[in-house]
Amino acid sequence: MDPDLSTLDEALDGAGVDGYLLDADSDVPDQRYLAGFDAPDPFVTLYDGDTHLLVSALEYGRAKTASRADTVARHSDYTEGAGSREAAGEVLAAFLEDHDVSSVLVPPRFPVGVADDLRERDVAVTSEDDGAGVLTDIRAVKTDEEIDHVRSAQRANERAMAAAEELLREATIEGNRLVHDGETLTAERVKTEIETTLLHEGCALSETIVASGADAADPHDRGSGPIAPGEAVIVDIFPQDNDTGYHADMTRTFVKGEPSEAIEEWYDLTEDAFEAALDVVEPGATGAEVHDAVCDVYEDAGEPTLRADPETETGFIHGTGHGVGLAVHEMPSLSFEGEELEPGNVITVEPGLYDPDVGGVRIEDFVVVTEDGYENLTDYPKALRVE
Amino acid sequence: MDPDLSTLDEALDGAGVDGYLLDADSDVPDQRYLAGFDAPDPFVTLYDGDTHLLVSALEYGRAKTASRADTVARHSDYTEGAGSREAAGEVLAAFLEDHDVSSVLVPPRFPVGVADDLRERDVAVTSEDDGAGVLTDIRAVKTDEEIDHVRSAQRANERAMAAAEELLREATIEGNRLVHDGETLTAERVKTEIETTLLHEGCALSETIVASGADAADPHDRGSGPIAPGEAVIVDIFPQDNDTGYHADMTRTFVKGEPSEAIEEWYDLTEDAFEAALDVVEPGATGAEVHDAVCDVYEDAGEPTLRADPETETGFIHGTGHGVGLAVHEMPSLSFEGEELEPGNVITVEPGLYDPDVGGVRIEDFVVVTEDGYENLTDYPKALRVE
Repeated sequence: MDPDLSTLDEALDGAGVDGYLLDADSDVPDQRYLAGFDAPDPFVTLYDGDTHLLVSALEYGRAKTASRADTVARHSDYTEGAGSREAAGEVLAAFLEDHDVSSVLVPPRFPVGVADDLRERDVAVTSEDDGAGVLTDIRAVKTDEEIDHVRSAQRANERAMAAAEELLREATIEGNRLVHDGETLTAERVKTEIETTLLHEGCALSETIVASGADAADPHDRGSGPIAPGEAVIVDIFPQDNDTGYHADMTRTFVKGEPSEAIEEWYDLTEDAFEAALDVVEPGATGAEVHDAVCDVYEDAGEPTLRADPETETGFIHGTGHGVGLAVHEMPSLSFEGEELEPGNVITVEPGLYDPDVGGVRIEDFVVVTEDGYENLTDYPKALRVE
Repeated sequence: MDPDLSTLDEALDGAGVDGYLLDADSDVPDQRYLAGFDAPDPFVTLYDGDTHLLVSALEYGRAKTASRADTVARHSDYTEGAGSREAAGEVLAAFLEDHDVSSVLVPPRFPVGVADDLRERDVAVTSEDDGAGVLTDIRAVKTDEEIDHVRSAQRANERAMAAAEELLREATIEGNRLVHDGETLTAERVKTEIETTLLHEGCALSETIVASGADAADPHDRGSGPIAPGEAVIVDIFPQDNDTGYHADMTRTFVKGEPSEAIEEWYDLTEDAFEAALDVVEPGATGAEVHDAVCDVYEDAGEPTLRADPETETGFIHGTGHGVGLAVHEMPSLSFEGEELEPGNVITVEPGLYDPDVGGVRIEDFVVVTEDGYENLTDYPKALRVE
């Protein structure tokens, strides 16, 4: 992949430093993005206009062929010593000197032990004062290749959602229980079905939400126990593709049996809020404006929102959406402080309503912002009743 | 859990500071251990003889009931402000002041942005100069509760290994292929069987190794493609229990069909090396001595080892074992530099032989060091041939 790093060049110019330095494993999205490399143990990436990797002997061969780096070095290129911390500091300083780098900008979560050690060796280390760092901003605008990756993860996500819905469809209502294959249908059983599907699709597992009844009224409750007939079940799946590292994100709300009138009204209202949000999505619109469109729909219908009452614990009690990529939650934000959307942003739109006395309803697709609006990356029907 | 933190007290006394500070999510084993709390986003733990947590409003309720902390605070206890970085620094400084802490020791991978911000607010921040940090040493000695956790993860591991072996057992030999359910049996198919089993056992997935033929000769190759009759298949599974966070670790080597004479000899020799290693394991023996016992067996039989030839790429080309706990690889190390074993160490013993022309063989159990020797935590037979 060939990301546009001009913003990083500007950040280095602005800080008056020679390079940008990362020391992290590739579970850290900035590292995986800049290095274009997936490794379980921390390694070093230096950007000075070109991208240079410093890796262990174990990763050297793979880094040379699989990473996006212009050069790859291994520790033993700079020392004969073993892997003690003293040696590690020496090696890193020698690596930087080799690239004529004597001052670096680092993200806020760069390890202090490494930073202080470099400072003792007269390398100037400045931590970015932006909360997350410049690479996080750069990652918010996806290349075509990245959009292909999230699209592919979404196909897996849709198969997992279909497997979950099919389980509900096959279940029978016996009194106040749902029964599948002779057993009471539980959130755990549905999650296992989802995760088994994702496994076969080559995705890592995430903490899928299958929450019904009062559980569904807490957007952070992952759900547990029996699913009752007539209760709204929120199914929120956000898998990560094992090969590419990119995520997808989608939520549907289902009812098996007869939903309450309140749930039906909420569902229709949430579909309206969802459409209202998407009507706003285009380059130049802000994430705050998209969020406001959702709040307008809910408030006009008399539902509480955090906008109308920051203390409310029922109604619409979270943001409208977030970026999705190497991280499942990343920039941009679709909430009160959401900034301007740009072509290439991949974002969720996920309005919802919550009340322990009623349950919870949420509908979520994810879309990519295009030059003249958006393209919905989600291909899954929206229907409350599972019949 | 009530870990013995006396070594941490000594480290604070030695450094002449008021407290030990962590800022990390609970994927960082030190954080999960000290906080006794599992949260996906970074939070702060301060140890000053007691343990104090600083968490977001979202995690506050759960942290109060589920963590091992003596006190739990939330950001809003210290500021009215929103979540900007400036506010985060103010909040953390106020939290430390509240506990009369003006100097802290931090692990080497503590975030530099937070450290520099505290320094600007006149909090002295010292990074530990040990490579990993004092908590990593403390974690090497397990409590009875932790030993129960790894034991429980190992039961899941054994069921996954049995599922893998059963697949090989069911397969039929058709020419130079193994066939299962009408399809060529591949490493990928066996891994899916293992991972599906682990999923049902409540374990997170890890990067299981199912490597046969020449793949098995590279201990870092996770394996792919068809498994041929007569080839040695290394199956190495190291699951993490979702609830407790603790790992297990076990390797078996299987052959479906007729193994080569070389593989049979290697298998017997590796069983001897394995027994020789365990004969050494007891409190006071060093990890280096255990490793030497394995090298002795292999060298006496004329096999290359890294001890005899640091440049060898065949033979016994890795360490003998490592600690297992919240991290799948942790202290102590059973290798050249391995230090004294203590009661409560949970360690793998995993000798093996590798050569691309022959294949690979490895046998791994994991055991806990006891007052007078060790207890093997593994309950799975060792047999090369799958019949």
